[in-house]
Amino acid sequence: MSEKSSREKIMESAAELFYYNGFKGTSIRAITARANVNVSLISYYFKNKQGLLETMTVDYYERYLELVENLLEDRQDDQPAERILNVIEEIIQYKYENFQFTCFIQRELSLDNIFIREMFSTYVAKERYLMNEMVNTVANVLELKGASKDALHIQLKSLLNAPFMYANDWQKGYAWDQSSQSFIRAYIETFKKWLPLSEHST
Amino acid sequence: MSEKSSREKIMESAAELFYYNGFKGTSIRAITARANVNVSLISYYFKNKQGLLETMTVDYYERYLELVENLLEDRQDDQPAERILNVIEEIIQYKYENFQFTCFIQRELSLDNIFIREMFSTYVAKERYLMNEMVNTVANVLELKGASKDALHIQLKSLLNAPFMYANDWQKGYAWDQSSQSFIRAYIETFKKWLPLSEHST
Repeated sequence: MSEKSSREKIMESAAELFYYNGFKGTSIRAITARANVNVSLISYYFKNKQGLLETMTVDYYERYLELVENLLEDRQDDQPAERILNVIEEIIQYKYENFQFTCFIQRELSLDNIFIREMFSTYVAKERYLMNEMVNTVANVLELKGASKDALHIQLKSLLNAPFMYANDWQKGYAWDQSSQSFIRAYIETFKKWLPLSEHST
Repeated sequence: MSEKSSREKIMESAAELFYYNGFKGTSIRAITARANVNVSLISYYFKNKQGLLETMTVDYYERYLELVENLLEDRQDDQPAERILNVIEEIIQYKYENFQFTCFIQRELSLDNIFIREMFSTYVAKERYLMNEMVNTVANVLELKGASKDALHIQLKSLLNAPFMYANDWQKGYAWDQSSQSFIRAYIETFKKWLPLSEHST
Protein backbone atom coordinates (compact mmCIF):
# COMPACT_ATOMS: atom_id res chain seq x y z
CA MET A 1 0.00 0.00 0.00
CA SER A 2 1.58 3.24 -1.07
CA GLU A 3 1.71 6.08 1.43
CA LYS A 4 0.25 9.43 0.62
CA SER A 5 2.90 11.81 -0.65
CA SER A 6 3.83 14.83 1.44
CA ARG A 7 2.41 16.99 -1.29
CA GLU A 8 -0.98 15.30 -1.01
CA LYS A 9 -0.90 15.44 2.78
CA ILE A 10 -0.26 19.20 2.66
CA MET A 11 -3.16 19.76 0.27
CA GLU A 12 -5.55 17.70 2.40
CA SER A 13 -4.59 19.49 5.59
CA ALA A 14 -4.91 22.85 3.87
CA ALA A 15 -8.42 21.99 2.61
CA GLU A 16 -9.48 21.14 6.13
CA LEU A 17 -7.98 24.24 7.76
CA PHE A 18 -9.19 26.61 5.03
CA TYR A 19 -12.67 25.16 5.50
CA TYR A 20 -12.71 25.81 9.24
CA ASN A 21 -10.65 28.99 9.52
CA GLY A 22 -10.65 30.58 6.08
CA PHE A 23 -7.62 31.33 3.91
CA LYS A 24 -6.46 34.32 5.94
CA GLY A 25 -7.05 32.55 9.24
CA THR A 26 -4.78 29.63 8.33
CA SER A 27 -1.01 29.78 8.75
CA ILE A 28 1.58 27.78 6.83
CA ARG A 29 2.83 26.43 10.13
CA ALA A 30 -0.64 25.15 11.06
CA ILE A 31 -0.88 23.36 7.70
CA THR A 32 2.48 21.63 7.97
CA ALA A 33 1.86 20.73 11.64
CA ARG A 34 -1.44 19.07 10.71
CA ALA A 35 0.13 17.31 7.72
CA ASN A 36 3.05 16.27 9.91
CA VAL A 37 5.64 17.39 7.36
CA ASN A 38 8.53 19.84 7.44
CA VAL A 39 7.54 23.47 6.93
CA SER A 40 10.13 23.91 4.18
CA LEU A 41 8.08 21.63 1.90
CA ILE A 42 5.56 24.41 1.32
CA SER A 43 8.12 26.54 -0.47
CA TYR A 44 9.54 23.45 -2.20
CA TYR A 45 6.21 22.36 -3.70
CA PHE A 46 4.08 25.52 -3.80
CA LYS A 47 6.35 28.55 -3.31
CA ASN A 48 4.04 30.02 -0.61
CA LYS A 49 0.50 29.91 0.81
CA GLN A 50 -0.93 31.76 -2.18
CA GLY A 51 0.78 29.26 -4.49
CA LEU A 52 -0.73 26.39 -2.50
CA LEU A 53 -4.21 27.87 -2.91
CA GLU A 54 -3.65 28.32 -6.65
CA THR A 55 -2.46 24.74 -7.09
CA MET A 56 -5.43 23.39 -5.14
CA THR A 57 -7.89 25.53 -7.07
CA VAL A 58 -6.48 24.60 -10.47
CA ASP A 59 -6.46 20.94 -9.50
CA TYR A 60 -10.07 21.09 -8.24
CA TYR A 61 -11.44 22.91 -11.28
CA GLU A 62 -9.48 20.98 -13.88
CA ARG A 63 -10.81 17.69 -12.54
CA TYR A 64 -14.35 19.05 -12.14
CA LEU A 65 -14.58 20.54 -15.63
CA GLU A 66 -13.00 17.50 -17.27
CA LEU A 67 -15.52 15.27 -15.52
CA VAL A 68 -18.47 17.32 -16.76
CA GLU A 69 -17.07 17.62 -20.26
CA ASN A 70 -16.51 13.88 -20.54
CA LEU A 71 -19.97 13.07 -19.16
CA LEU A 72 -21.63 15.36 -21.67
CA GLU A 73 -19.65 13.85 -24.53
CA ASP A 74 -19.79 10.20 -23.54
CA ARG A 75 -23.52 9.80 -23.21
CA GLN A 76 -24.76 11.55 -26.33
CA ASP A 77 -26.74 8.47 -27.37
CA ASP A 78 -28.78 8.38 -24.16
CA GLN A 79 -32.16 10.03 -23.77
CA PRO A 80 -31.54 13.76 -23.10
CA ALA A 81 -33.28 13.67 -19.73
CA GLU A 82 -31.43 10.58 -18.53
CA ARG A 83 -28.12 12.06 -19.67
CA ILE A 84 -28.67 15.29 -17.74
CA LEU A 85 -29.85 13.54 -14.60
CA ASN A 86 -26.67 11.49 -14.69
CA VAL A 87 -24.47 14.58 -15.09
CA ILE A 88 -26.28 16.29 -12.19
CA GLU A 89 -25.68 13.28 -9.97
CA GLU A 90 -22.00 13.05 -10.86
CA ILE A 91 -21.42 16.77 -10.26
CA ILE A 92 -22.99 16.62 -6.80
CA GLN A 93 -20.99 13.49 -5.99
CA TYR A 94 -17.76 15.19 -7.08
CA LYS A 95 -18.49 18.23 -4.95
CA TYR A 96 -19.41 16.01 -2.03
CA GLU A 97 -16.20 13.96 -2.32
CA ASN A 98 -14.33 17.25 -2.08
CA PHE A 99 -16.71 18.59 0.55
CA GLN A 100 -14.43 20.90 2.51
CA PHE A 101 -12.73 22.46 -0.48
CA THR A 102 -16.06 22.90 -2.28
CA CYS A 103 -17.58 24.74 0.70
CA PHE A 104 -14.45 26.83 1.07
CA ILE A 105 -14.20 27.81 -2.58
CA GLN A 106 -17.93 28.63 -2.81
CA ARG A 107 -17.53 30.97 0.14
CA GLU A 108 -14.40 32.53 -1.38
CA LEU A 109 -16.16 33.07 -4.70
CA SER A 110 -18.79 35.19 -2.97
CA LEU A 111 -16.07 37.64 -1.93
CA ASP A 112 -14.87 40.19 -4.40
CA ASN A 113 -11.11 39.88 -4.27
CA ILE A 114 -8.56 40.29 -7.01
CA PHE A 115 -7.09 36.79 -6.85
CA ILE A 116 -10.51 35.19 -7.09
CA ARG A 117 -11.50 37.39 -10.01
CA GLU A 118 -8.32 36.71 -11.98
CA MET A 119 -8.03 33.10 -11.02
CA PHE A 120 -11.53 32.07 -11.98
CA SER A 121 -12.37 34.14 -15.01
CA THR A 122 -11.26 31.19 -17.13
CA TYR A 123 -12.91 28.50 -15.00
CA VAL A 124 -16.16 30.34 -14.48
CA ALA A 125 -16.35 30.98 -18.24
CA LYS A 126 -15.70 27.32 -18.99
CA GLU A 127 -18.23 26.20 -16.40
CA ARG A 128 -20.82 28.58 -17.85
CA TYR A 129 -20.25 27.09 -21.30
CA LEU A 130 -20.79 23.53 -20.04
CA MET A 131 -23.80 24.57 -17.97
CA ASN A 132 -25.29 26.11 -21.11
CA GLU A 133 -25.07 22.75 -22.84
CA MET A 134 -26.97 21.19 -19.95
CA VAL A 135 -29.51 24.00 -19.87
CA ASN A 136 -30.20 23.66 -23.58
CA THR A 137 -30.96 19.99 -23.12
CA VAL A 138 -33.19 20.58 -20.11
CA ALA A 139 -34.91 23.52 -21.83
CA ASN A 140 -35.78 21.34 -24.82
CA VAL A 141 -37.32 18.66 -22.65
CA LEU A 142 -39.23 21.27 -20.61
CA GLU A 143 -40.08 23.19 -23.79
CA LEU A 144 -38.60 26.44 -22.49
CA LYS A 145 -37.32 29.09 -24.83
CA GLY A 146 -35.39 32.39 -24.83
CA ALA A 147 -35.18 34.40 -21.62
CA SER A 148 -36.36 31.56 -19.44
CA LYS A 149 -33.16 29.66 -20.31
CA ASP A 150 -31.20 32.20 -18.28
CA ALA A 151 -33.64 31.67 -15.44
CA LEU A 152 -33.15 27.92 -15.72
CA HIS A 153 -29.38 28.36 -15.73
CA ILE A 154 -29.51 30.21 -12.40
CA GLN A 155 -31.74 27.57 -10.92
CA LEU A 156 -29.60 24.67 -12.08
CA LYS A 157 -26.38 26.28 -10.87
CA SER A 158 -27.94 27.14 -7.55
CA LEU A 159 -29.25 23.60 -6.99
CA LEU A 160 -25.84 22.12 -7.79
CA ASN A 161 -24.21 24.44 -5.24
CA ALA A 162 -26.83 24.62 -2.49
CA PRO A 163 -25.61 21.83 -0.18
CA PHE A 164 -22.16 23.44 -0.18
CA MET A 165 -23.26 27.07 0.05
CA TYR A 166 -25.40 26.73 3.13
CA ALA A 167 -23.44 23.93 4.75
CA ASN A 168 -23.20 25.54 8.20
CA ASP A 169 -26.87 26.33 8.21
CA TRP A 170 -27.94 22.79 7.29
CA GLN A 171 -25.58 21.13 9.68
CA LYS A 172 -27.07 23.12 12.54
CA GLY A 173 -30.72 22.78 11.53
CA TYR A 174 -30.92 19.27 10.16
CA ALA A 175 -29.75 15.80 10.80
CA TRP A 176 -26.96 16.06 8.29
CA ASP A 177 -24.11 13.76 9.05
CA GLN A 178 -21.43 15.01 6.73
CA SER A 179 -19.50 11.76 6.87
CA SER A 180 -22.41 9.71 5.57
CA GLN A 181 -23.70 9.52 2.04
CA SER A 182 -27.33 9.47 3.13
CA PHE A 183 -28.05 13.19 3.02
CA ILE A 184 -26.45 13.66 -0.35
CA ARG A 185 -28.33 10.66 -1.76
CA ALA A 186 -31.61 12.13 -0.49
CA TYR A 187 -30.65 15.45 -2.03
CA ILE A 188 -29.99 13.90 -5.43
CA GLU A 189 -33.23 11.88 -5.33
CA THR A 190 -35.27 14.97 -4.42
CA PHE A 191 -33.50 16.89 -7.18
CA LYS A 192 -34.61 14.23 -9.65
CA LYS A 193 -38.23 14.30 -8.50
CA TRP A 194 -38.18 18.05 -8.41
CA LEU A 195 -36.84 18.32 -11.91
CA PRO A 196 -39.76 17.22 -14.06
CA LEU A 197 -37.56 15.30 -16.45
CA SER A 198 -37.82 11.85 -15.00
CA GLU A 199 -41.20 11.20 -16.58
CA HIS A 200 -39.59 11.75 -19.99
CA SER A 201 -36.55 9.61 -19.33
CA THR A 202 -37.94 6.20 -20.14
CA MET B 1 -48.36 64.23 -2.93
CA SER B 2 -46.51 63.59 0.32
CA GLU B 3 -42.75 63.80 0.19
CA LYS B 4 -40.63 60.95 1.39
CA SER B 5 -39.58 61.45 4.99
CA SER B 6 -35.92 62.04 5.77
CA ARG B 7 -35.92 58.75 7.61
CA GLU B 8 -37.07 56.90 4.48
CA LYS B 9 -34.59 58.78 2.30
CA ILE B 10 -31.73 57.77 4.60
CA MET B 11 -32.75 54.11 4.52
CA GLU B 12 -33.04 54.10 0.73
CA SER B 13 -29.65 55.72 0.25
CA ALA B 14 -28.09 53.33 2.75
CA ALA B 15 -29.53 50.31 0.92
CA GLU B 16 -28.00 51.53 -2.32
CA LEU B 17 -24.58 52.32 -0.86
CA PHE B 18 -24.39 49.11 1.21
CA TYR B 19 -25.22 47.17 -1.95
CA TYR B 20 -22.38 48.72 -3.95
CA ASN B 21 -19.73 49.28 -1.27
CA GLY B 22 -20.64 46.97 1.61
CA PHE B 23 -21.39 47.99 5.19
CA LYS B 24 -17.79 48.73 6.12
CA GLY B 25 -17.15 50.58 2.88
CA THR B 26 -20.00 53.03 3.42
CA SER B 27 -19.64 56.14 5.61
CA ILE B 28 -22.44 57.98 7.40
CA ARG B 29 -21.45 61.11 5.51
CA ALA B 30 -21.85 59.33 2.15
CA ILE B 31 -25.33 58.16 3.16
CA THR B 32 -26.55 61.59 4.26
CA ALA B 33 -24.98 63.26 1.20
CA ARG B 34 -26.82 60.86 -1.11
CA ALA B 35 -30.07 61.28 0.83
CA ASN B 36 -29.55 65.06 0.81
CA VAL B 37 -30.26 65.39 4.54
CA ASN B 38 -28.33 66.76 7.48
CA VAL B 39 -25.77 64.35 8.95
CA SER B 40 -27.17 64.84 12.47
CA LEU B 41 -30.35 63.00 11.48
CA ILE B 42 -28.51 59.68 11.61
CA SER B 43 -27.96 59.98 15.37
CA TYR B 44 -31.46 61.40 15.78
CA TYR B 45 -33.23 58.48 14.07
CA PHE B 46 -30.79 55.57 14.35
CA LYS B 47 -28.13 56.40 16.96
CA ASN B 48 -25.31 55.37 14.57
CA LYS B 49 -24.48 53.34 11.43
CA GLN B 50 -24.87 50.06 13.27
CA GLY B 51 -28.29 51.20 14.52
CA LEU B 52 -29.28 52.11 10.98
CA LEU B 53 -28.35 48.62 9.77
CA GLU B 54 -30.32 47.06 12.62
CA THR B 55 -33.42 49.14 11.89
CA MET B 56 -33.24 48.29 8.18
CA THR B 57 -32.75 44.61 8.88
CA VAL B 58 -35.60 44.39 11.38
CA ASP B 59 -37.87 46.30 9.00
CA TYR B 60 -36.94 44.05 6.06
CA TYR B 61 -37.41 40.79 7.96
CA GLU B 62 -40.56 41.79 9.83
CA ARG B 63 -42.29 42.67 6.56
CA TYR B 64 -40.97 39.59 4.79
CA LEU B 65 -41.97 37.12 7.50
CA GLU B 66 -45.37 38.73 8.00
CA LEU B 67 -46.02 38.48 4.28
CA VAL B 68 -45.17 34.77 4.19
CA GLU B 69 -47.12 34.03 7.37
CA ASN B 70 -50.23 35.77 6.05
CA LEU B 71 -50.01 34.08 2.68
CA LEU B 72 -49.75 30.67 4.27
CA GLU B 73 -52.73 31.39 6.53
CA ASP B 74 -54.98 33.17 4.07
CA ARG B 75 -55.11 30.58 1.38
CA GLN B 76 -55.63 27.40 3.34
CA ASP B 77 -58.69 26.54 1.26
CA ASP B 78 -56.79 26.56 -2.02
CA GLN B 79 -55.24 23.48 -3.55
CA PRO B 80 -51.91 22.86 -1.76
CA ALA B 81 -49.87 23.15 -4.95
CA GLU B 82 -51.56 26.37 -6.05
CA ARG B 83 -51.09 27.85 -2.59
CA ILE B 84 -47.37 27.11 -2.53
CA LEU B 85 -46.79 28.39 -6.05
CA ASN B 86 -48.46 31.62 -5.00
CA VAL B 87 -46.26 31.96 -1.89
CA ILE B 88 -43.13 31.31 -3.97
CA GLU B 89 -44.11 34.01 -6.43
CA GLU B 90 -44.85 36.55 -3.69
CA ILE B 91 -41.56 35.86 -1.89
CA ILE B 92 -39.52 36.37 -5.05
CA GLN B 93 -41.47 39.54 -5.83
CA TYR B 94 -40.82 40.89 -2.33
CA LYS B 95 -37.10 40.18 -2.59
CA TYR B 96 -37.02 41.75 -6.03
CA GLU B 97 -38.82 44.91 -4.85
CA ASN B 98 -36.09 45.21 -2.21
CA PHE B 99 -33.42 44.12 -4.67
CA GLN B 100 -30.40 45.98 -3.32
CA PHE B 101 -31.04 45.23 0.34
CA THR B 102 -31.80 41.58 -0.44
CA CYS B 103 -28.51 41.14 -2.30
CA PHE B 104 -26.63 42.97 0.44
CA ILE B 105 -28.13 40.98 3.30
CA GLN B 106 -27.63 37.65 1.51
CA ARG B 107 -23.98 38.52 1.11
CA GLU B 108 -23.68 39.62 4.74
CA LEU B 109 -25.32 36.40 5.92
CA SER B 110 -22.58 34.38 4.25
CA LEU B 111 -20.03 36.07 6.51
CA ASP B 112 -19.58 34.84 10.02
CA ASN B 113 -19.76 37.97 12.15
CA ILE B 114 -21.17 38.46 15.61
CA PHE B 115 -23.81 41.03 14.71
CA ILE B 116 -25.22 38.87 11.94
CA ARG B 117 -25.28 35.83 14.19
CA GLU B 118 -27.08 37.58 17.03
CA MET B 119 -29.32 39.68 14.86
CA PHE B 120 -30.68 36.83 12.79
CA SER B 121 -30.93 33.92 15.14
CA THR B 122 -34.59 34.88 15.65
CA TYR B 123 -35.35 35.66 12.03
CA VAL B 124 -33.55 32.68 10.58
CA ALA B 125 -35.38 30.44 13.08
CA LYS B 126 -38.75 31.97 12.16
CA GLU B 127 -37.99 31.71 8.45
CA ARG B 128 -37.04 28.07 8.88
CA TYR B 129 -40.34 27.39 10.62
CA LEU B 130 -42.35 28.95 7.79
CA MET B 131 -40.26 27.21 5.15
CA ASN B 132 -40.98 23.93 6.89
CA GLU B 133 -44.69 24.56 6.45
CA MET B 134 -44.12 25.09 2.74
CA VAL B 135 -41.87 22.06 2.49
CA ASN B 136 -44.45 19.83 4.16
CA THR B 137 -47.03 20.88 1.61
CA VAL B 138 -44.69 20.37 -1.33
CA ALA B 139 -43.48 17.06 0.10
CA ASN B 140 -47.02 15.76 0.32
CA VAL B 141 -47.76 16.66 -3.28
CA LEU B 142 -44.47 15.15 -4.44
CA GLU B 143 -44.94 12.19 -2.09
CA LEU B 144 -41.60 12.72 -0.37
CA LYS B 145 -40.96 11.54 3.15
CA GLY B 146 -38.40 11.79 5.95
CA ALA B 147 -34.83 12.71 5.09
CA SER B 148 -35.72 13.96 1.64
CA LYS B 149 -37.72 16.79 3.22
CA ASP B 150 -34.48 18.34 4.44
CA ALA B 151 -33.13 18.00 0.93
CA LEU B 152 -36.24 19.70 -0.42
CA HIS B 153 -35.90 22.49 2.15
CA ILE B 154 -32.38 23.28 0.93
CA GLN B 155 -33.52 23.28 -2.66
CA LEU B 156 -36.51 25.52 -2.03
CA LYS B 157 -34.50 28.01 0.01
CA SER B 158 -31.74 28.05 -2.56
CA LEU B 159 -34.17 28.68 -5.44
CA LEU B 160 -35.82 31.54 -3.56
CA ASN B 161 -32.42 33.15 -2.97
CA ALA B 162 -30.58 32.37 -6.18
CA PRO B 163 -31.32 35.54 -8.19
CA PHE B 164 -30.05 37.60 -5.27
CA MET B 165 -27.06 35.45 -4.33
CA TYR B 166 -25.42 35.42 -7.71
CA ALA B 167 -26.60 38.84 -8.84
CA ASN B 168 -23.18 40.06 -9.99
CA ASP B 169 -22.58 36.89 -11.89
CA TRP B 170 -25.90 36.98 -13.74
CA GLN B 171 -25.71 40.64 -14.57
CA LYS B 172 -22.38 40.09 -16.26
CA GLY B 173 -23.25 36.89 -18.07
CA TYR B 174 -26.84 37.39 -19.06
CA ALA B 175 -29.17 39.99 -20.45
CA TRP B 176 -30.54 40.84 -17.05
CA ASP B 177 -31.85 44.35 -16.84
CA GLN B 178 -32.34 44.83 -13.14
CA SER B 179 -34.81 47.66 -13.64
CA SER B 180 -37.20 45.53 -15.65
CA GLN B 181 -39.55 42.87 -14.38
CA SER B 182 -38.93 40.60 -17.34
CA PHE B 183 -36.10 38.54 -15.90
CA ILE B 184 -37.81 37.96 -12.60
CA ARG B 185 -41.04 36.99 -14.38
CA ALA B 186 -39.11 34.45 -16.47
CA TYR B 187 -37.46 33.17 -13.31
CA ILE B 188 -40.80 32.62 -11.59
CA GLU B 189 -42.31 30.95 -14.64
CA THR B 190 -39.34 28.59 -14.96
CA PHE B 191 -39.56 27.88 -11.24
CA LYS B 192 -43.19 26.85 -11.70
CA LYS B 193 -42.43 24.57 -14.65
CA TRP B 194 -39.44 23.20 -12.84
CA LEU B 195 -41.41 22.40 -9.70
CA PRO B 196 -43.58 19.49 -10.74
CA LEU B 197 -46.59 20.79 -8.84
CA SER B 198 -48.39 22.64 -11.58
CA GLU B 199 -49.90 19.49 -13.05
CA HIS B 200 -51.56 18.84 -9.68
CA SER B 201 -52.84 22.36 -9.22
CA THR B 202 -56.04 22.26 -11.23
